[in-house]
Amino acid sequence: MSFGIDDLPVRDELRGKSPYGAPQLDVPVRLNTNENPYPLPEPLVERITERVREAARHLNRYPDRDAVELRTRLAAYLTKTAGHPVATENVWAANGSNEVIQQLLQTFGGPGRTAIGFEPSYSMHGLIARGTGTGWISGPRHEDFTVDLAAAEKAIAVHRPDVVFVTTPNNPTGNAVPPETVLALYEAAQKARPSMVVVDEAYVEFSHGDSLLPLLDGRPNLVVSRTMSKAFGAAGLRLGYLAAHPAVVDAVQLVRLPYHLSAITQATALAALEHTDTLLGYVEQLKAERDRLVAELRALGYEVTESDANFVQFGRFEDSHATWRKILDRGVLVRDNGVPGWLRVTAGAPEENDAFLDAVREIEKEQSA
Amino acid sequence: MSFGIDDLPVRDELRGKSPYGAPQLDVPVRLNTNENPYPLPEPLVERITERVREAARHLNRYPDRDAVELRTRLAAYLTKTAGHPVATENVWAANGSNEVIQQLLQTFGGPGRTAIGFEPSYSMHGLIARGTGTGWISGPRHEDFTVDLAAAEKAIAVHRPDVVFVTTPNNPTGNAVPPETVLALYEAAQKARPSMVVVDEAYVEFSHGDSLLPLLDGRPNLVVSRTMSKAFGAAGLRLGYLAAHPAVVDAVQLVRLPYHLSAITQATALAALEHTDTLLGYVEQLKAERDRLVAELRALGYEVTESDANFVQFGRFEDSHATWRKILDRGVLVRDNGVPGWLRVTAGAPEENDAFLDAVREIEKEQSA
Repeated sequence: MSFGIDDLPVRDELRGKSPYGAPQLDVPVRLNTNENPYPLPEPLVERITERVREAARHLNRYPDRDAVELRTRLAAYLTKTAGHPVATENVWAANGSNEVIQQLLQTFGGPGRTAIGFEPSYSMHGLIARGTGTGWISGPRHEDFTVDLAAAEKAIAVHRPDVVFVTTPNNPTGNAVPPETVLALYEAAQKARPSMVVVDEAYVEFSHGDSLLPLLDGRPNLVVSRTMSKAFGAAGLRLGYLAAHPAVVDAVQLVRLPYHLSAITQATALAALEHTDTLLGYVEQLKAERDRLVAELRALGYEVTESDANFVQFGRFEDSHATWRKILDRGVLVRDNGVPGWLRVTAGAPEENDAFLDAVREIEKEQSA
Repeated sequence: MSFGIDDLPVRDELRGKSPYGAPQLDVPVRLNTNENPYPLPEPLVERITERVREAARHLNRYPDRDAVELRTRLAAYLTKTAGHPVATENVWAANGSNEVIQQLLQTFGGPGRTAIGFEPSYSMHGLIARGTGTGWISGPRHEDFTVDLAAAEKAIAVHRPDVVFVTTPNNPTGNAVPPETVLALYEAAQKARPSMVVVDEAYVEFSHGDSLLPLLDGRPNLVVSRTMSKAFGAAGLRLGYLAAHPAVVDAVQLVRLPYHLSAITQATALAALEHTDTLLGYVEQLKAERDRLVAELRALGYEVTESDANFVQFGRFEDSHATWRKILDRGVLVRDNGVPGWLRVTAGAPEENDAFLDAVREIEKEQSA
């Protein structure tokens, strides 16, 4: 045996673990990581180039540590799209919403503290909890993947977590959590102990409903996290952000790495924020494609979870991994998220979704033959 | 009182703390954060622009999670400049060496574990330890800021730390640690328990001596960390990296946030790596300026710590903060690092260093008048 991870003095809980991440396979149609299928429009590419050229001329200097211009433009975007006033001091940004969540857990979680999520949900919440020494509690959902409020309230009362994650629309299931459920969870969490409630709205631009940003009013322990990876079509940029009471923004600065956000990232994100109208136009197309996927999969006889996201969870399969493989054999990569009996497919461009639906129909035909 | 950080359920150890960071003041001559004074050459700015344009066209997709091309080019740079073969699988990269250090502490430190540094040294080592729940031990130095090896060996034997930081050249003092001292610390650390020794070489390109990379041979618990912020003149890029045994690179991937390094950051760093010859030319100019600062400050009667970095520590002052203020009043911002009696000045462009030396001479004259 050659020298490996377990020969190093790594933390015990890391022994035998594998890095998180979907397989990066070279397949014609990739519908597995909820990427936006539309490349950035060429005028935006040129605007990024201009802004980056300017930033590169000062690259010998550290970036604006507080990313004030970027936070101001993100606040303006939220104000415009959520119809709720959000100011610069309500907003914080980091390298992907993963880093936002890591900073929140370093501030409000950490050793001797716990966080809860209602699973299946975005698995990075639990993994980042582990990475920050925060105890992780897996809370319940109903069989139909809606949050089981009574069971959730009970879990909160029993475990008294310091941080509560609510993902809406939820990943990997796709369904949104009703605002009144989020409010009830917030109340339950505050009753148990003063604790932070993090509403992960990574996919909210694809929702039939509204953002929960207005709930921030009068609730200083509430945080809404967002990303430019999905609706902005900028997964490669790694720009996540949050909106919350200004005290929360002050607090995460106690744990953020200084100058965590590069001048190049700030410049690129600012360029993208100048083109929100075009990018949100693509979102409308993707919502229509998402609705088509739901309808066609149901017409084929599948169970499909209600989706407010840019992906669709469908089932049920006796052996979801075997079906995943059959779809892959037809050149389409979907996601096997480890939810027994279910698979997840990203809403891609129309021709990608056609290829996916053709693959599924072929498999159906084969099985009934 | 308005609602503030302490009204939130933040971790107890964060209460009353302030965010890390030098004051960002608008001053004609900024010699306080060890930035490279030379803007990137225009051909490199154009190359960054080209590479970023290409990356922006695929920005809707996640970046290469393992940053293979970038790590390959960094390995080639290390091989060329250290005269020691380094391969892709020896290298890992992240958003600044701060994130590299955070990942190392999440992997090898964390709750229930400890790390030691020999202070005064780079204060982020201790701050990132706190942020990752790692206990921090402040190890000793001699009065002249060299590592007190006997005392250090004793501290290691007593505390049995899981991670040992050695900063060479040291920040904020400027002096390098002799290779035989690093080797002795490595041996002491291994004797106490299997532990990781992290050699922080952020400033090594400015050193009179050689990189310690060849020490990696046969020492799987040794890590060398580097940055593109200083010698590459790219503080705004936030690109740190490490070289170590491939098992270390595998291990940090258990805690890294997936897709932590944006496609834009990877593209920009790759462009800079195409221009290392030009950038290292600037390093030679800065070394000459650094040596000039040392000589002139000594001629003025100051004590100056030996410097192998792009900055110089000088003293002694009864009230170093008062002197810092007097220099600032003359339009030059240096760093008051909290080392009693000492200040630190970055080697800037010749005219910046002239402005600094003029300010110091003026203050001298005033005092002797």
